[in-house]
Amino acid sequence: MDRVVLLSTGDELICGAIADTNAQWLAGRFFDLGLEVVTVLTVGDEPDRLRWAWKTAFEQGELVLSTGGLGPTADDLTTEIVAQVFGEGLRFDEPSADHIRRLFGAMRRPMPENNLKQAWFPESAVVVENPLGTAPGYRISRRAGQGPATGHESHLFVLPGVPREMKRMFLDTVEPWVREQRGIAQTPILRTFQTFGMSESALDEEIAALIRPDEARIGFRASFPKIAVKLLIRPGSGETTAAAEARIDELAERVRQRLGAVIYGEGEMAMEEAVLHALEAKTATLALAESCTGGLIGHRLTEVPGISAFLLADYVVYSNDAKSDVLGVKATTLAEHGAVSEQTACEMAEGARRRSGASVAVAVTGIAGPGGGTREKPVGTVCFALSAEGFLVSRRHQLWGTRDWVKLLASQFALDMVRRWALGLSEIAPGFRR
Amino acid sequence: MDRVVLLSTGDELICGAIADTNAQWLAGRFFDLGLEVVTVLTVGDEPDRLRWAWKTAFEQGELVLSTGGLGPTADDLTTEIVAQVFGEGLRFDEPSADHIRRLFGAMRRPMPENNLKQAWFPESAVVVENPLGTAPGYRISRRAGQGPATGHESHLFVLPGVPREMKRMFLDTVEPWVREQRGIAQTPILRTFQTFGMSESALDEEIAALIRPDEARIGFRASFPKIAVKLLIRPGSGETTAAAEARIDELAERVRQRLGAVIYGEGEMAMEEAVLHALEAKTATLALAESCTGGLIGHRLTEVPGISAFLLADYVVYSNDAKSDVLGVKATTLAEHGAVSEQTACEMAEGARRRSGASVAVAVTGIAGPGGGTREKPVGTVCFALSAEGFLVSRRHQLWGTRDWVKLLASQFALDMVRRWALGLSEIAPGFRR
Repeated sequence: MDRVVLLSTGDELICGAIADTNAQWLAGRFFDLGLEVVTVLTVGDEPDRLRWAWKTAFEQGELVLSTGGLGPTADDLTTEIVAQVFGEGLRFDEPSADHIRRLFGAMRRPMPENNLKQAWFPESAVVVENPLGTAPGYRISRRAGQGPATGHESHLFVLPGVPREMKRMFLDTVEPWVREQRGIAQTPILRTFQTFGMSESALDEEIAALIRPDEARIGFRASFPKIAVKLLIRPGSGETTAAAEARIDELAERVRQRLGAVIYGEGEMAMEEAVLHALEAKTATLALAESCTGGLIGHRLTEVPGISAFLLADYVVYSNDAKSDVLGVKATTLAEHGAVSEQTACEMAEGARRRSGASVAVAVTGIAGPGGGTREKPVGTVCFALSAEGFLVSRRHQLWGTRDWVKLLASQFALDMVRRWALGLSEIAPGFRR
Repeated sequence: MDRVVLLSTGDELICGAIADTNAQWLAGRFFDLGLEVVTVLTVGDEPDRLRWAWKTAFEQGELVLSTGGLGPTADDLTTEIVAQVFGEGLRFDEPSADHIRRLFGAMRRPMPENNLKQAWFPESAVVVENPLGTAPGYRISRRAGQGPATGHESHLFVLPGVPREMKRMFLDTVEPWVREQRGIAQTPILRTFQTFGMSESALDEEIAALIRPDEARIGFRASFPKIAVKLLIRPGSGETTAAAEARIDELAERVRQRLGAVIYGEGEMAMEEAVLHALEAKTATLALAESCTGGLIGHRLTEVPGISAFLLADYVVYSNDAKSDVLGVKATTLAEHGAVSEQTACEMAEGARRRSGASVAVAVTGIAGPGGGTREKPVGTVCFALSAEGFLVSRRHQLWGTRDWVKLLASQFALDMVRRWALGLSEIAPGFRR
């Protein structure tokens, strides 16, 4: 069961209304399970297209996972089409109907009668519970020769398209089932490192010098400014899980030794969480002083629940007046060095720390573009400073890309400085190796 | 030529490394051109899969548009596969080779010899120039009976996967070609309205009461909190473009009359831009006071170039101390009404306006969750205030969804209040009709 086909259905996907982030997420999960996604098929809510897509998916895949088309309305056609394609009738599932009624009861809303449509399944379907919504999913398994002729055994999972519900059902039901089917010995073992400070190709060079292709499969996953390095091994025949874990741990340790502080977290950790954990460990509070990032650093940190105990204030001082008024940046500093200078950044950081009473403050001031660049300070010039008790460091970086990119990259540099300071690292503000 | 198939190729798409935003963008363009995307096929850089995908795409589509696989490296296989599938040889295109050499010259970098791979095309290909990169694209046209048997005429466009280059080539070459092929009279005419204040289903209800299905095709495009309404008509046979424009303008006017200030912009305008334009028209400056949104409002506004002339400061006062210290919120107000109250929001807005000297200030304070809710103030309670000379308005809303959702929705309410104030509307802070 190695060939996976993802089937994404919904008019919103073929008229440009939304990007298919479900397929991306699922492809990532299957990669981590060591299975290969051979194709993603995307079609709208149209019976002929759906029939074609289901037949094609079955021909191509041993495991087919479909998302979408399980809602209560007339254009939700998935179950009807699946039953047709497989020559099955429909059966009404009383426990699922109860679940749907209970959900509406909990929301104190009357249940529209058409919602019971979601309690009908193809006869042979095994229900996949949906703890977060009214649309249960299901699994159908076919041996070769049953249903459309494929010559191979096929397993089909049908899940709703709502990302939150789909992900929970995948993690609770589909993934454990896949692991069990493949046998634990075949499930690959994975280590993920979240990095900041090197481009994908620089990381690739480093890892290539450390780990031979026959020792582990190496993957990169870049959604800038986040670049993750993945190590994947499969236990050998006769190798115990413990032995395989020890083998990957030895490889992971090489990566940690080589990359050092460029790794800010392992597993799925985000930079924002790494900063929160580092502040927590040091019991330090934080203030921010932002100019060109315009609130992005504060926004990113406040996406993490629990940050309110550590983040005291974010002074977004976009104008020179605000820099002086709120943070006490001297008029002479602004006049002599300009708003985009390490000197101004230092006074911003010191002012933010003084004003808020935080243990540490970080400041960012720069030129995000597209206008505002000069010969001495081109677009992308960004100055950073970090102030703590008896400690002040500043740095000027030349960043690149469009306005949103410069802001994003600058926010990542600033967060990384806080993390490095809180961890007591000797280098607080290294550059970026492209 | 109505059936479009999009073919997205690249290992990064089937291992979860990136979402297929190219397909989303292209699907949106084809929708606006009045063509139907019947399927999106996604495969990795693997010869067998690519051959299968090309054959399948040709069977299903009259227009096939492929992205990816045109790079200089060994795993860029698109041209080789296309030539195989169509039984064509390859030819070397000297003008394309010159273009590639010139680009490397301009970057003052030596050209690796393998880059000339990008100057090879299937024999019958018509080159599509790439003004922004080294990978030219091409078009191949096949009558029914040529190449894989499809029974219909097929046109195939092959473009690179780099979004910036692909989009430029699509707009410069593919779209004009499609418009010409279909004849200008057949190109649909489109009006787009950006809205805030009603759910998709509420909008649907309103529009259904205004415009009959035979008068225009209605589309919605929701990427929350942005909900766009689209009207699409096709000029009738013999109808002039001017007459068709007049016809759609009459329909558009009905929509404007009905939705009123719920429409914040037409075409592709974002709320942030609408706010900038409204401030510009009133020559008003703005200050922000954020608590639960944590800098998101400032971040969103500073994505728009030119905002620095209008946005003076953003006081992200996350803690109670910061609210008092920076904005002068009274300790008694915080004690009696709490940090999340209309009273506190009012004092935040007034403090921000006083401190910054801006013409108008907007303040947001709320409970984004998941923790922090109480019986009186459940998660999602958000209070807003807007202060201007001789003017103060506040509002409490009960928002919904997860933490990031509450923040996003709250930022949209706040921006909309600024827009409504700057436009001099009588209602500054209406609710949201779900």
